[in-house]
Amino acid sequence: MVGNMLGIVRVWTTEDEQLLQEHSVLLRQRMGIHSISDCIPDQPYGIYNQESKAAALPKITALVKEIAADADIDAISISCAADPALDVSRAAVSIPVIGAGEAGAHAACMISDKIGVLGLTNKIPEAIETVLGERLVGHLVPDGVTNTTDLLKKETTAAAISSARQLINQGATAILFACTGYSTIHLKETIIKELAVPVIDLVEAQGMAYSMIRQRR
Amino acid sequence: MVGNMLGIVRVWTTEDEQLLQEHSVLLRQRMGIHSISDCIPDQPYGIYNQESKAAALPKITALVKEIAADADIDAISISCAADPALDVSRAAVSIPVIGAGEAGAHAACMISDKIGVLGLTNKIPEAIETVLGERLVGHLVPDGVTNTTDLLKKETTAAAISSARQLINQGATAILFACTGYSTIHLKETIIKELAVPVIDLVEAQGMAYSMIRQRR
Repeated sequence: MVGNMLGIVRVWTTEDEQLLQEHSVLLRQRMGIHSISDCIPDQPYGIYNQESKAAALPKITALVKEIAADADIDAISISCAADPALDVSRAAVSIPVIGAGEAGAHAACMISDKIGVLGLTNKIPEAIETVLGERLVGHLVPDGVTNTTDLLKKETTAAAISSARQLINQGATAILFACTGYSTIHLKETIIKELAVPVIDLVEAQGMAYSMIRQRR
Repeated sequence: MVGNMLGIVRVWTTEDEQLLQEHSVLLRQRMGIHSISDCIPDQPYGIYNQESKAAALPKITALVKEIAADADIDAISISCAADPALDVSRAAVSIPVIGAGEAGAHAACMISDKIGVLGLTNKIPEAIETVLGERLVGHLVPDGVTNTTDLLKKETTAAAISSARQLINQGATAILFACTGYSTIHLKETIIKELAVPVIDLVEAQGMAYSMIRQRR
């Protein structure tokens, strides 16, 4: 029997069930997609440097294997723009594994050859940079943003719109988020309303990828 | 005012309105997307060699410009796997232009790193080959198929399933159609039913791309 549910891997540790299921709630509300989110253990601050990344990689692969053992799950998504452990996870299980960053970058390439990236840290995620290639117009981090928590600050939305406007002035005809945190603050809707430019949200990109995979509707 | 309709360019000439609107009908029925299809003049056999391609390119760009002048249209799609005149068309108008082949190839990359391509002619479309890169597992044309008309033959479905099975045996975890003609014969549904593998249909890929662009729902 084929399942009909997406398993979502969050790459930071929380015991707050509501926070944990955030991306699953967005996917159900916006796209009618059923999913369940799970997180890696013992990394309350997620991935923030090489050491924490190295620690996370085997945990992600282990979690992917655990989720894949559930007969209700027919695909898994790693919900992080940096696509940590994507290749090894794909090699480890027989169901499709989606990477949020990679999926978002390819989605952006479907509609634009001049893409502006709105990120969270100064370094653009490697897979996103590789996929976009010459389509990458620029990569900006909104003023005052240094980590995911900053996204919740009131002034972040205005700063993000200003960055998106700057990317459009540089020639971008689509905006790609390089952080799933932007999904939580519904930045896509705000940018579309203010700037009338297509925006690729990484949680929605995972949903779009999953809609191509699922066999049962 | 922003429109909310996709303009579809068909790269062959027909006066049969039903045939002409075929992709528009599929997009409405399957995805609830509103579109209108138009075709280039004086090419009843479409694009089938270098000469006919050279003749078609300026006609495609002219048609793209004409469609873009319609205020109801907020994006244009060139509905051909070979993406003829995509770059020049993008440079010629201010609304987004989608290429069926390119959009399909990127859609496939969102869900798989081992993609098998089911084509119409021995040569794989260049943009599809470029986008897939190392993800391309193989490219096959079903036995007995040499042009779009052959797709309508009763025996084509069985031959296409056999080719798809061969691509899966070669390691493919997703099948990408490299011809919009496969949409017309609903081959995606048949392959999913028989082989339980995700299939990227080029008409649906255009619809997916458009769903990221449209501002009004």
